[in-house]
Amino acid sequence: MYQLGIVKRNIVRADAAAVEKLSRFGVATLHEAMGRVGLMKPYIRPVYPGARICATAVTVLLQPGDNWMMHVAAEQIQPGDLVVAACTTDNEDGFFGDLLATSFLARGARGLVIDGGVRDVDALQKMDFPVFSRAIHAKGTIKATLGSVNVPVVCAGAMVHPGDVVVADTDGVVVVPAAMAQQVADAAEKRENLETDKRAKFAAGVLGLDLYQMREGLAKAGLRYVD
Amino acid sequence: MYQLGIVKRNIVRADAAAVEKLSRFGVATLHEAMGRVGLMKPYIRPVYPGARICATAVTVLLQPGDNWMMHVAAEQIQPGDLVVAACTTDNEDGFFGDLLATSFLARGARGLVIDGGVRDVDALQKMDFPVFSRAIHAKGTIKATLGSVNVPVVCAGAMVHPGDVVVADTDGVVVVPAAMAQQVADAAEKRENLETDKRAKFAAGVLGLDLYQMREGLAKAGLRYVD
Amino acid sequence: MYQLGIVKRNIVRADAAAVEKLSRFGVATLHEAMGRVGLMKPYIRPVYPGARICATAVTVLLQPGDNWMMHVAAEQIQPGDLVVAACTTDNEDGFFGDLLATSFLARGARGLVIDGGVRDVDALQKMDFPVFSRAIHAKGTIKATLGSVNVPVVCAGAMVHPGDVVVADTDGVVVVPAAMAQQVADAAEKRENLETDKRAKFAAGVLGLDLYQMREGLAKAGLRYVD
Amino acid sequence: MYQLGIVKRNIVRADAAAVEKLSRFGVATLHEAMGRVGLMKPYIRPVYPGARICATAVTVLLQPGDNWMMHVAAEQIQPGDLVVAACTTDNEDGFFGDLLATSFLARGARGLVIDGGVRDVDALQKMDFPVFSRAIHAKGTIKATLGSVNVPVVCAGAMVHPGDVVVADTDGVVVVPAAMAQQVADAAEKRENLETDKRAKFAAGVLGLDLYQMREGLAKAGLRYVD
Amino acid sequence: MYQLGIVKRNIVRADAAAVEKLSRFGVATLHEAMGRVGLMKPYIRPVYPGARICATAVTVLLQPGDNWMMHVAAEQIQPGDLVVAACTTDNEDGFFGDLLATSFLARGARGLVIDGGVRDVDALQKMDFPVFSRAIHAKGTIKATLGSVNVPVVCAGAMVHPGDVVVADTDGVVVVPAAMAQQVADAAEKRENLETDKRAKFAAGVLGLDLYQMREGLAKAGLRYVD
Amino acid sequence: MYQLGIVKRNIVRADAAAVEKLSRFGVATLHEAMGRVGLMKPYIRPVYPGARICATAVTVLLQPGDNWMMHVAAEQIQPGDLVVAACTTDNEDGFFGDLLATSFLARGARGLVIDGGVRDVDALQKMDFPVFSRAIHAKGTIKATLGSVNVPVVCAGAMVHPGDVVVADTDGVVVVPAAMAQQVADAAEKRENLETDKRAKFAAGVLGLDLYQMREGLAKAGLRYVD
Repeated sequence: MYQLGIVKRNIVRADAAAVEKLSRFGVATLHEAMGRVGLMKPYIRPVYPGARICATAVTVLLQPGDNWMMHVAAEQIQPGDLVVAACTTDNEDGFFGDLLATSFLARGARGLVIDGGVRDVDALQKMDFPVFSRAIHAKGTIKATLGSVNVPVVCAGAMVHPGDVVVADTDGVVVVPAAMAQQVADAAEKRENLETDKRAKFAAGVLGLDLYQMREGLAKAGLRYVD
Repeated sequence: MYQLGIVKRNIVRADAAAVEKLSRFGVATLHEAMGRVGLMKPYIRPVYPGARICATAVTVLLQPGDNWMMHVAAEQIQPGDLVVAACTTDNEDGFFGDLLATSFLARGARGLVIDGGVRDVDALQKMDFPVFSRAIHAKGTIKATLGSVNVPVVCAGAMVHPGDVVVADTDGVVVVPAAMAQQVADAAEKRENLETDKRAKFAAGVLGLDLYQMREGLAKAGLRYVD
Repeated sequence: MYQLGIVKRNIVRADAAAVEKLSRFGVATLHEAMGRVGLMKPYIRPVYPGARICATAVTVLLQPGDNWMMHVAAEQIQPGDLVVAACTTDNEDGFFGDLLATSFLARGARGLVIDGGVRDVDALQKMDFPVFSRAIHAKGTIKATLGSVNVPVVCAGAMVHPGDVVVADTDGVVVVPAAMAQQVADAAEKRENLETDKRAKFAAGVLGLDLYQMREGLAKAGLRYVD
Repeated sequence: MYQLGIVKRNIVRADAAAVEKLSRFGVATLHEAMGRVGLMKPYIRPVYPGARICATAVTVLLQPGDNWMMHVAAEQIQPGDLVVAACTTDNEDGFFGDLLATSFLARGARGLVIDGGVRDVDALQKMDFPVFSRAIHAKGTIKATLGSVNVPVVCAGAMVHPGDVVVADTDGVVVVPAAMAQQVADAAEKRENLETDKRAKFAAGVLGLDLYQMREGLAKAGLRYVD
Repeated sequence: MYQLGIVKRNIVRADAAAVEKLSRFGVATLHEAMGRVGLMKPYIRPVYPGARICATAVTVLLQPGDNWMMHVAAEQIQPGDLVVAACTTDNEDGFFGDLLATSFLARGARGLVIDGGVRDVDALQKMDFPVFSRAIHAKGTIKATLGSVNVPVVCAGAMVHPGDVVVADTDGVVVVPAAMAQQVADAAEKRENLETDKRAKFAAGVLGLDLYQMREGLAKAGLRYVD
Repeated sequence: MYQLGIVKRNIVRADAAAVEKLSRFGVATLHEAMGRVGLMKPYIRPVYPGARICATAVTVLLQPGDNWMMHVAAEQIQPGDLVVAACTTDNEDGFFGDLLATSFLARGARGLVIDGGVRDVDALQKMDFPVFSRAIHAKGTIKATLGSVNVPVVCAGAMVHPGDVVVADTDGVVVVPAAMAQQVADAAEKRENLETDKRAKFAAGVLGLDLYQMREGLAKAGLRYVD
């Protein structure tokens, strides 16, 4: 359950070497390496082209129209973290802009994933601070109600624990549990090696029907070719 | 109330100097300077990256699938205006394309904000005619039913009167009532000056918790730090 | 009706010269030339800027979360085709990525239009393989259930028969029935010639009100000018 | 423009006799009598079947996740009023439940139209307090930020001034400006009389094609009958 | 392709006995009997509880905000038909109300399925005229632009040919091609007989795991039971 | 993280007495008693009026278009449980109908909450089996891919652990963690007692402004009354 009014200071971050290794792979590959789980919903999109993040999560639970907890979260950021922001209800207000981005950058943050809106998008792009959000909205927010920092949150349909590795690129956002970081990185490496070989075969004109030996299975399932 | 079948020729446009001053600020800043009101809904997006408008509004109320009134509106455009197009119902047809853009440009228009669809987007970008819309859609429209020009309209949730200043950028669209243009520009200037100082402090590593003296308030609200 | 478990091998593709001629026109023009029909819904968008396709359709009917039929479709691709993928239900999983794109390219495909999700979008852009989709989503798919290849499908609200010409650009996607390809190309040419003249007049400041002689019709409909 | 932090006490309510007359007609008829304007968007729905309201508007502008102004609005309700609640941003939290309904009823309110969420729906139905909302949501709200009472608001795409007549039934919600109440009621009466006659003719098997003499117009427009 | 401006008078309706037999089965059963195809999208819902239709289709293609063709369609209705209305673009205006329902009823129509809005819903319920629509909306429409009657249409994602059997109930809407009506009715009967037996077994506590002999397949797929 | 291919047999269900006590309260009250957390998103709605559930959760993670795991879940149901079904991606297919409902009922299930579609809704109502879903859809599903049973799932934005108490009524769905069941029931009781008193005062005409002593706070916040 969410706990409101809590800031957890000591969190267990995923192993730095594993995070570094995870950063070499794309979101699609990592999600496959995890067994096809851990993705956020596809409405979370980068606010400018080319944005990419791989970092350990400081989580924050926001209230609608209120970004007070963002400032509380800032203090918990360590170099190499990103902030993952959830909200107690669907809300697209602009919880985050260039001032907070400046503060997060100064703390060493690598980016933000937020199930809400952000603003000052041109400035974010200029300062090269990657943000993935559900909306771009100039709407300002207040500072009146407590949420929490570093509690487990559900962000865009995915469970995120503080310290988990979050990887975001053009294809979406995936959450790798801290305890599985190394294992997933290794599985991703293996998968990518396999894909290199497959890619060459596909490029040479081999069909997936033959490469994956699908013809028999398709025939068994009843596929009929007609003219 | 909307009035259908009306074209108002003489409208009171916001003061030109105030419009010029408003053009220096972003939508997020202006919306804050107005007391956090006046924004259109965030589904209105630029049809190409980098589009930006600051101009006085000629308003038009369209009927679904019908762009007849766009031609009526063209005649009412004066240099420095933009057109703000609302519709009597939700409709994403392509009410506007490169021919109308050519006509609007020839009249001195600075852009279009439309709660509907547009097309010929590549051409719009080439001619550098900024458009903010709810959809991109090739669907053509007819010329059969009266709407109105230069009546108050609700466009993407915001009330727009003819002559109001409308500012659109990557963060969204804000409507500044004509009578408040100077006052909002001044407030925006003040706010931006304050932000410069804050930005420097954030960049230097000062936390919002300290800059805004939030710690006491958070403690009073019951925030607890745990390990 | 859809037929499941069928692959039609011999399809009648639109005439190659007509396809070539169609490729000179934009989607908005072609849709007008067809009498304002044949468009897909506007939620189908290019996955990277500047994508454009004009090709004959190999159709595929997918099952949710399952891309088995994509591999069956690959074998039916001939140089100059695109693949048009529909699904038996709304589903945004990532049915298509860089491996299948490599395979499709090797077969001579010119692109993909899919009423579903795709992934590896950066790679698709690098290999210059144009894709128009309803979503970008890293979610992987299985290979378990039969759909069909080269049956008539409904894709994003438009009926597509195998062999039809599908044109996709920034403004959307239009389907030109194979038997009408030449006729539509000719009509588009005529329309574009007319527009060149109109564009010049609009640029010179002529109003649509005068160019299209709308003033009388508007007055008859009851339009009133007020001050 | 919206003004935040304002409560207007003296508002001009539509004439009581006109309101009573308006209450005899359905929303579809009234919207036609007004010239097809004044409707809220169709996402506003009754929270229980059979709900119906015809009353003068006390307006309230809410902040997201905050129902403080509802209590301020309560004091401004006079017998025969309804409350029309807008919000500064899209938000579906449960701003209203049985306690506020009890309070509103005690003040003589006839119902609520809200561009947000409500809760305690079973209780609302039991106390026969009609509510039209954009969502049903148990989510509680805070009391922290000022909005306004009895300022003009945009509610579900419709402009509402305090004192306007708002009519809500199964077909939707229409706003009749206070100054036009009598005129619209009279026009609705005339329209309904005409419809009675038409209904009898349709029931007797007369076609609209003949009743409205459409055949010539359709032929002129080019309609072709084929076998 | 759609053809605009056409009314086809002679259509081949599905066999009456087959239609009668189809009327005994629910939409879910019929869709299964067809091989899991033919369903409209689930946003089409009955406008009042308990509505149900089984009838042969007169199709109509509407233009946005325009119900002219509804009157043209009325003349083509024969007893035992329903009207299936598609639109050239997404539009939720109220194309249909009690007057047209009166006319359709007088022609012997059994109901309406429309990918658009309807109004006068209380009256429709009172006259027991079943309607399935994408929206309820009081918004009136004009009579200005040609569509077509009895051409193939795409309605809510499903292809419908004139004369097809359309069945609508609480679970949705399914389209049975005229030529397959008898075959689908027979398959539905067979399926329902099988289900009666299964239902009894489920009621007696037999698990699907055993009834369908799934345990082996699940184990092969790798399912693990843990404590 | 989700684990695919797992069935957990021994789960710790919330205390039966606490569940019974929770069943006396509505969802809105329980959500408040928990500190305004634990709600599912409001798109989950009852499939027939009056549905209500209070039970301990057996969780199931489904794959899109696949209800194989529903049968696996059936075996894990104990009298007094409900099933909470999540899916690895957004999908509205009809995962559940009257046969599975018959099976679940025979196992003692009290209902279903599913972030997907269901069918046979009339039958569900007749057998009085309460279901809360995101859609009603006749679309059938396959049995091909493993998900899991009794792992933590995210259902409609809420985290649900097996054994948690899930309460669903007209206002929505709330998840009470098993370990907090008694505490939340007690807090709900306290809150409801307080509300009885407040309700009486509201009914007597006392304003919330006075009952909650808001006038001073509003004035401090700057609220101005104007005439």
